[in-house]
Amino acid sequence: MVTLDRVYHASYTLKNVIRNTDLIRAQNINSDCDLYLKTENLQITGSFKVRGAYYKISQLSDEDRAKGVIACSAGNHAQGVALAATKAGIKSVICLPDIAPISKVEATKKYGAETILVPGVYDDAYKKAMELKEEEGYTFIHPFDDEEVIIGQGTIGLELLEQLPDVEAVVVPIGGGGLISGVAFTIKSLKPDCKVYGVQSCGAASMFNSIKRNCLETLDSVATIADGISVKTPGNITYEMCCKYVDDIVTVTDDEISTAILTLIEQQKLIAEGAGAVSVAAVLFNKIPVKSKKVACLVSGGNIDVTILSRVIHRGLLKAGRMADITIALSDKPGQLAGVSRIIADLGGNVVSIYHDRADLDIDINACYLRIVMETRDHSHVDEIKNALTSAGYTLV
Amino acid sequence: MVTLDRVYHASYTLKNVIRNTDLIRAQNINSDCDLYLKTENLQITGSFKVRGAYYKISQLSDEDRAKGVIACSAGNHAQGVALAATKAGIKSVICLPDIAPISKVEATKKYGAETILVPGVYDDAYKKAMELKEEEGYTFIHPFDDEEVIIGQGTIGLELLEQLPDVEAVVVPIGGGGLISGVAFTIKSLKPDCKVYGVQSCGAASMFNSIKRNCLETLDSVATIADGISVKTPGNITYEMCCKYVDDIVTVTDDEISTAILTLIEQQKLIAEGAGAVSVAAVLFNKIPVKSKKVACLVSGGNIDVTILSRVIHRGLLKAGRMADITIALSDKPGQLAGVSRIIADLGGNVVSIYHDRADLDIDINACYLRIVMETRDHSHVDEIKNALTSAGYTLV
Repeated sequence: MVTLDRVYHASYTLKNVIRNTDLIRAQNINSDCDLYLKTENLQITGSFKVRGAYYKISQLSDEDRAKGVIACSAGNHAQGVALAATKAGIKSVICLPDIAPISKVEATKKYGAETILVPGVYDDAYKKAMELKEEEGYTFIHPFDDEEVIIGQGTIGLELLEQLPDVEAVVVPIGGGGLISGVAFTIKSLKPDCKVYGVQSCGAASMFNSIKRNCLETLDSVATIADGISVKTPGNITYEMCCKYVDDIVTVTDDEISTAILTLIEQQKLIAEGAGAVSVAAVLFNKIPVKSKKVACLVSGGNIDVTILSRVIHRGLLKAGRMADITIALSDKPGQLAGVSRIIADLGGNVVSIYHDRADLDIDINACYLRIVMETRDHSHVDEIKNALTSAGYTLV
Repeated sequence: MVTLDRVYHASYTLKNVIRNTDLIRAQNINSDCDLYLKTENLQITGSFKVRGAYYKISQLSDEDRAKGVIACSAGNHAQGVALAATKAGIKSVICLPDIAPISKVEATKKYGAETILVPGVYDDAYKKAMELKEEEGYTFIHPFDDEEVIIGQGTIGLELLEQLPDVEAVVVPIGGGGLISGVAFTIKSLKPDCKVYGVQSCGAASMFNSIKRNCLETLDSVATIADGISVKTPGNITYEMCCKYVDDIVTVTDDEISTAILTLIEQQKLIAEGAGAVSVAAVLFNKIPVKSKKVACLVSGGNIDVTILSRVIHRGLLKAGRMADITIALSDKPGQLAGVSRIIADLGGNVVSIYHDRADLDIDINACYLRIVMETRDHSHVDEIKNALTSAGYTLV
């Protein structure tokens, strides 16, 4: 059973294993509320998952510990279980689909797990994990639908109330619901008037749908930048706990999540993964009623692939007018490129790449397209450059 | 005078103004030592500068406070002085060269300063600041060569010894030398056996040169990605203090700094600016003798422009084989692009952009170049794709 004294017990058990992550005030994200970030992206393994995994493992019998544990995940749960098992001095086996990024496999190995790459997708890896559990007697560590895992995640609620006793609202990402179940239970047990809001990605809103329709629902497919909370079916235990302890659940889009990631980088110097940034996205885009309130957003993890991060930044720069991508139709005669370059340079645009194309069918035989990507200051700077080009007789496409 | 009791006094004075930033253990950066990061990139204003600025301002007479303060900077010092003055309830004026990035000007304004854009470069802005100081009676806040500024920065040393009493070496970025003067003085006063190392960028090694040659030297020019420590002449006070309290100074290259920035992102989920990452670069590339030691690297700031960050990430990805840029000479007939694409896709490469060029003079009239940028797993993955293309008869250029 999930009880407050077990959460306290977990907190004591975790003391020398995890970091009590910093709560950082974030004044520049949304000026309408007094915002704080609980930085579980700075937790060891880069996410909160190690808390639940370690507490679960600490409660196993000596016999079960001797056999070891197994889990199925290509992400934060894999790394959390691997490190937790290593810290507890027991064996861990992680089944991953063979399409998992090498970096995730390597990270899991590095924390001490034996990794098994299973051909296929998540479901195939899960099946394999279940087979091995039967054959070898491993204990399966569920990523969210397990009371002891939930209790472990609940320790974040204790730390939050210690760090910000007068917190009025807590905003928590939801995938399968393990994190919010533990945090909401703890917060509501100690400070019932504090609101607890859940946030899901639009592209994987399984708990959101289930709660709204009053029954546990499975999505046919999920698609979101927030892979860490991309879950088709919420847990049974977590669904019940969300019904009981969570005030409301909202959703955010991939664009909103990307903006939140970029905002956290620029304003707070923090890297969050998509799943970790949904809470901040919800506050940034006023999805929850926290005006004038003291709000804590849980930034649950920071394990974002750098190639994805690079795309998020690029997209964010384009959206903010900090980078511009313009195409000009030129008559194909000498000096045109020089003229365009001069105008851009004079106005302080910094050209990053140029693509010059003569082969397009839908323009005049003597014309060509010039596509320019440049660094700019903001949208008005982009407009200034575009206007100058138009005034000088160039045709923007 | 810089004394230990004044550093303690500064620490008390700063209590409700600044954050006592977290010391984070960083186990995955260099396994040869036990590494910790003092995260001043998570300080308010995104750098340590607010410490010295606020302590300096707190020590002004009522008369001087009534007149206000002036500073000249386009970076962290500007934001530090602006916020410090606002917190102290006094006026601040910041002179910036008009080539300063809009984002820096806006940040300085946001913290409450009056900003003056001076046509020209830093020296012109400095001249203007000196004129205004004379005319208006403002107190000039020097970015580093000032005892009270140095005392303010020294408070980091106190926090460090509190957080990690058995620290054996501290690694500190050096620009003008204000930060390291304060930190080295404090550390050596309390724990003389703890080593203090300074790190400069190769492209702006003014303190490094001065110390090695035993006299204060001015560089003709500076060029580095670490703009926050790009200083032509060290201070007089800071030079003397570095001679006295710093064990050694080393330099790092822009490539090493870029790698350190990327490593901090991937391993620690932290954004550091170039100046803030030089300490980590020095440990990462074994520039200082800290094997088996308990080491604290000061990550002094995180105010890196996102466009520069984007470039650093891109370069880091290419260097790590996580992104590849290949050019193939194709005979110009149908189906070639499809063939190449198939091979790359089958091996799990993810094409980001394609550039197809028929106009090059140095190849056969019936041939063309195909340049492909793709996301890859690592160098061996890149080689695998290249070998497959070569085996299939394509010519890599």
